[in-house]
Amino acid sequence: MSDEWASLDATDQAALVARGDASPSELVEAAIARIERLDGDLGAVIHPDPDGARAAVQAGLPEGPFRGVPFLMKDIGGAQAGRPNHAGMRFLKEAGWVEPEDSYFTRKLRAAGLVLLGRTNTPELALLPTTEPEAYGATRNPWDLEHTAGGSSGGAAAAVAAGLVPMAHASDGGGSIRGPAGVTGLVGLKPTRARNSFGPGLGERWSGFSCEFAVTRSVRDSAALLDVTAGPMPGDPYSAPPPERPYAELATRDPGRLRVGFLGQAPRDLPTDPDCTRAVEKTAHALEALGHHVEEAHPEALHDPQVVASYVAVVTSNTARALDAAAQKVGRPVKAEDVEPLTWALAERGRATTAPELLAALEFVHALGRRFAAWWEDYDLLLTPTQAQPPARLGEITSTADEPLRAFLRAAPYGVFTLPYNLSGQPAISVPTHWTESGLPIGAQLVARTNREDQLLQVAAQLEAELSWTSRRPPIHA
Amino acid sequence: MSDEWASLDATDQAALVARGDASPSELVEAAIARIERLDGDLGAVIHPDPDGARAAVQAGLPEGPFRGVPFLMKDIGGAQAGRPNHAGMRFLKEAGWVEPEDSYFTRKLRAAGLVLLGRTNTPELALLPTTEPEAYGATRNPWDLEHTAGGSSGGAAAAVAAGLVPMAHASDGGGSIRGPAGVTGLVGLKPTRARNSFGPGLGERWSGFSCEFAVTRSVRDSAALLDVTAGPMPGDPYSAPPPERPYAELATRDPGRLRVGFLGQAPRDLPTDPDCTRAVEKTAHALEALGHHVEEAHPEALHDPQVVASYVAVVTSNTARALDAAAQKVGRPVKAEDVEPLTWALAERGRATTAPELLAALEFVHALGRRFAAWWEDYDLLLTPTQAQPPARLGEITSTADEPLRAFLRAAPYGVFTLPYNLSGQPAISVPTHWTESGLPIGAQLVARTNREDQLLQVAAQLEAELSWTSRRPPIHA
Repeated sequence: MSDEWASLDATDQAALVARGDASPSELVEAAIARIERLDGDLGAVIHPDPDGARAAVQAGLPEGPFRGVPFLMKDIGGAQAGRPNHAGMRFLKEAGWVEPEDSYFTRKLRAAGLVLLGRTNTPELALLPTTEPEAYGATRNPWDLEHTAGGSSGGAAAAVAAGLVPMAHASDGGGSIRGPAGVTGLVGLKPTRARNSFGPGLGERWSGFSCEFAVTRSVRDSAALLDVTAGPMPGDPYSAPPPERPYAELATRDPGRLRVGFLGQAPRDLPTDPDCTRAVEKTAHALEALGHHVEEAHPEALHDPQVVASYVAVVTSNTARALDAAAQKVGRPVKAEDVEPLTWALAERGRATTAPELLAALEFVHALGRRFAAWWEDYDLLLTPTQAQPPARLGEITSTADEPLRAFLRAAPYGVFTLPYNLSGQPAISVPTHWTESGLPIGAQLVARTNREDQLLQVAAQLEAELSWTSRRPPIHA
Repeated sequence: MSDEWASLDATDQAALVARGDASPSELVEAAIARIERLDGDLGAVIHPDPDGARAAVQAGLPEGPFRGVPFLMKDIGGAQAGRPNHAGMRFLKEAGWVEPEDSYFTRKLRAAGLVLLGRTNTPELALLPTTEPEAYGATRNPWDLEHTAGGSSGGAAAAVAAGLVPMAHASDGGGSIRGPAGVTGLVGLKPTRARNSFGPGLGERWSGFSCEFAVTRSVRDSAALLDVTAGPMPGDPYSAPPPERPYAELATRDPGRLRVGFLGQAPRDLPTDPDCTRAVEKTAHALEALGHHVEEAHPEALHDPQVVASYVAVVTSNTARALDAAAQKVGRPVKAEDVEPLTWALAERGRATTAPELLAALEFVHALGRRFAAWWEDYDLLLTPTQAQPPARLGEITSTADEPLRAFLRAAPYGVFTLPYNLSGQPAISVPTHWTESGLPIGAQLVARTNREDQLLQVAAQLEAELSWTSRRPPIHA
């Protein structure tokens, strides 16, 4: 029974409960059993919480759209009262840090009837496109256990791809939803900046680059879940304007004939693997077959070397701040030996950045948003590979004490296509449109104007129907 | 004829044009004559542009809601192509800096049919609650020429209060709309963060503390003008959700019985002048007479000393960045002797601030927004004095080379009630509800939840009808 449910998306699992064909308890027990059976191979769920899940079911679940559906939270953001939240840090793990309260995001998930079964692995401070923190070890890709499930939402993606849960919390500050979705055959939507609240703990993360959301099996799940999580919360410093209708409804509408620009090769001379270009070409052909206008075109601003420089300035500054915040939580300073060599090196760089330098970087970032917007006056969507290389082997994106920044440099091909829209705050989605000969999924990314998640969901739904990726299952699957 | 029109608000002046009772040219010529006649006393209009205004009329004005109404722009923000924009800086004045293009805000004003007659005085980098830049000299208060018209939108406020134009561009990063409105008997609305775009030149100013808008004679003008200026523009990093109906319509609605907390004394032991407390008491009585529930109450977080510390961290960092940006415009570095002593001292402090320190300050700011929001769950509005002291005499809020920070310290009573909502991004309005025995206006401030400009406008309109301040005229008036 459990194996049959494992192939259903969250919408279908919720329908089982609504129809009385399964009870929340049955769904949850089946998911607990899948995690116990498969996660030893995957290393995705670092803090399973079967007792908490059972207690939530026992207490009575709210009548939300996802009543009784099993769900997992990432080890950064999405705080749960009394539960660990270590951001992949040994420092917080060893201190036994647990959160004082649920975040607004978590409260909305619970109010939708989702049942939280545990927390998933992430690299330290979500800094890498692979999930191999010293604190919790590597997460493996269910399509090939020698490869990464991506990062920083690698635990979430591995868990959903293997059918442990139909969708899971993820977050994206440079590609951390889209990348893992791409390399595990899932749908990964990064919503518009400030679509989902970071409250009450934070107002924004990574100076507005990061956002909370999820990886899902189906497009309709991303749409329906966004209806659950979106919307301003009290005290948000800013928030995205709400959609005119629920996303679940908008996602089913015909988008009309869209103008799509496509970019198959990474800017700034980063080599792009033919399989990644192929994913875009296949997607471009499918879009044309669907009646969209597709041509080679992209914003020239993507080639500006300051894109990466300003990204690095903002992320390193925030890394330094994150170590200070972790120190405040634990009550003692974070020292070099408390964190991974990469983390320390980035924090050192952040500490050496002045406030006016950070503000200059943010000014460039805001100007970049204007330059992108000018391109999007002529096009509805940009189509690119999600990453410039297929999923790396585990152990490839690493640092050493001698070369602490090496992992960051090696990460470049995995962020080059995604991070520009963390700067601009535009919504973007990764859809799995191609598989390599060896059976590894490759994602294609679509990027829309700010606040046009509806267009991304509509086109992703068209592609999903056309390319039938939802029927594919990895070797490791419940 | 000109004197009669000078007492009309913008809505009435636009109606003259719409009915054919006056031509745009007649309105504009009358305003030009008023500026020529009165501004010698006021020092409000530092860059009159009668030729530009005449050319705009000649070219044919758009059919907007304010067709033919004279308007003035502030010497910071609100860029006009080919026109000076010196932010009160001698450095930019001496370099002859002119803007390359209109800002979005300016374009919207022009599209509404407003005619831009020139630019108004502001302190250097808008840093003070008085308008006495070395570059352009002092702006005087038309109610008493020995007193300040406030700052940083002092030029705008003096010009509107004296009837030169019915409303004028202003901006507010700590009270720079509300303060000048309060001390000149005008309506000063600071909208919700990101209600009006800073594009294309900037994404945000003062890390989100500042906002563009105006000072107006009447509440209905603030409402109708906000309909003109509000709304997202391409590439905005974030933007406030739009209202459900136009503000002009919402402003006429009955707000119902609101829960109002009032605070008559400044927090943190800053002495509050009895006249400022009196302005609040009169307003509180008027609100009770209107059927609102009023009681002494305010957010405890206002007493947190970090409110001012974090404000200073953000403003000084941005001051340092602003000098770098000015240097880039002119093509040579800004040296100490190029700016006022206060500006240099603040920039030095900003340069000594690290990026993680700035991020920590912004984290406090965002947490403050949550604490305020918790108070606003129980109350609709907070009522306070706009400033803790009546308008200062000119020359009082000054620095010297020996004591460069003195002006900033002396500015404290004039920002203590207003700046907290630049941190939280909430909308707030100053209305002129009291006059001192010597005839100086004193403002009262109302603060609403984020995105509730409608409530502020509704209650301000009620107070305007009740307290009839629009009939008062200063000694210097057209």
